[in-house]
Amino acid sequence: MADLEHTTSAFDSELQSLSCRIAEMGGLVEEQVVEAVEALKNRDLERGSRVVAADANVDLMQREIEQAAVEMIARRQPVANDLRQAVAILRIASELERIGDLAKNICKRICGLDGAYLPRQFMEGVMHISTLILGQLKDVLDSLASRDVAKAIQVWARDQDIDRLYTSLFRELLAQMVEDLGTVTSSVHLVFCMKNIERIGDHATNIAEAIYYMVQGRALWEERPKADLTVTVPGSMVLRSSAPLSETA
Amino acid sequence: MADLEHTTSAFDSELQSLSCRIAEMGGLVEEQVVEAVEALKNRDLERGSRVVAADANVDLMQREIEQAAVEMIARRQPVANDLRQAVAILRIASELERIGDLAKNICKRICGLDGAYLPRQFMEGVMHISTLILGQLKDVLDSLASRDVAKAIQVWARDQDIDRLYTSLFRELLAQMVEDLGTVTSSVHLVFCMKNIERIGDHATNIAEAIYYMVQGRALWEERPKADLTVTVPGSMVLRSSAPLSETA
Repeated sequence: MADLEHTTSAFDSELQSLSCRIAEMGGLVEEQVVEAVEALKNRDLERGSRVVAADANVDLMQREIEQAAVEMIARRQPVANDLRQAVAILRIASELERIGDLAKNICKRICGLDGAYLPRQFMEGVMHISTLILGQLKDVLDSLASRDVAKAIQVWARDQDIDRLYTSLFRELLAQMVEDLGTVTSSVHLVFCMKNIERIGDHATNIAEAIYYMVQGRALWEERPKADLTVTVPGSMVLRSSAPLSETA
Repeated sequence: MADLEHTTSAFDSELQSLSCRIAEMGGLVEEQVVEAVEALKNRDLERGSRVVAADANVDLMQREIEQAAVEMIARRQPVANDLRQAVAILRIASELERIGDLAKNICKRICGLDGAYLPRQFMEGVMHISTLILGQLKDVLDSLASRDVAKAIQVWARDQDIDRLYTSLFRELLAQMVEDLGTVTSSVHLVFCMKNIERIGDHATNIAEAIYYMVQGRALWEERPKADLTVTVPGSMVLRSSAPLSETA
């Protein structure tokens, strides 16, 4: 019995330490996204290259957390709730690593936008979505720190609204490309940046699901009612638009 | 000693069973990619929707393999090489699941291409890349089945050539968009499809790295010398092109 207690408390202390490291990783990833969005906004190549360089730290943290979690599972043989906690940490570390990759990808595209003219309202639209996504990321990390399931559900539920906004911005960007030939390449880069931002939101939602599973012991939903709605924007859409060619074409 | 042997052989038999399941998952995912490429080629909405529907099976398999691998780690407490095998299986299952998602995403975009005119040479280019990526996926799954490290290294090394091809096709597609306004929306969908195909290749390369780690016990490279080179295609590129507007503009 003393042995069992000893093992349990050793597990708790290792789990506590892993929770701290995942919180630290979350903080680093959040900062990477903030910096990527700022670099994109100001098309700041230097700031962008710092984000690209710092991504190696995120990758390293993920590998360390993964290693520690797996070794803890092997050594402590947790069951039920304890095993679930460890598995959820593995999943969250992997989601955070992917968010870090997306922040890096955004920054890599900034040089494709360098010097290109982009209409103000698009950058404003992209920044608006970025602000919402950063809010989602912050909330899901808060929810992780406090094991606040209600907050995790809020993040999960908001994802659909953001997808709708993304789709409408995507349509506008396509219409803009038709109007202004000079912006085609930069618009494509911006579409990819926006897609990366939207995917950061998806990973935040995945983290919300992992938190729910961690605390409640069951899946939030098997398949959440979300999708990138732009996939069904018809190829013939722009043909129906009667937008005149702009002068810069 | 008898106990240890018993545990070892129980572990080996569980590992064997997991290896079979990951091979089965690999087969399913490969079929999903083949079907997605065929559906894209023929813009076959019905075939595409079958791929979308079947993705739930891929997700389910991943969760089952993850669950089984984690439980095996907790129960058998493997160390060194055995633990590495189990961790590599976890990683490969996650990579396969992401490949399945990308095949699904390609199919979701097919309706965006429905009825749109796309120049033959682009579809040919996309199909050429798809064939190469399918070869990569097949080779990496063969390498996994036979633990063939040399073959895994070949897959890993070929990834860069495919990235170069992708970048040149990406440039052509952008130039085409400028020439022919009527194809902007469908071209954007095609760019996303092509990007998804390229990312399938990245995940195949990740699997090659996991196989190397599984067999050799160390990382193939910390960071492979690869990148999506299109991220640096300058936004001003198309302005330098003197391509005339086509008649459909």
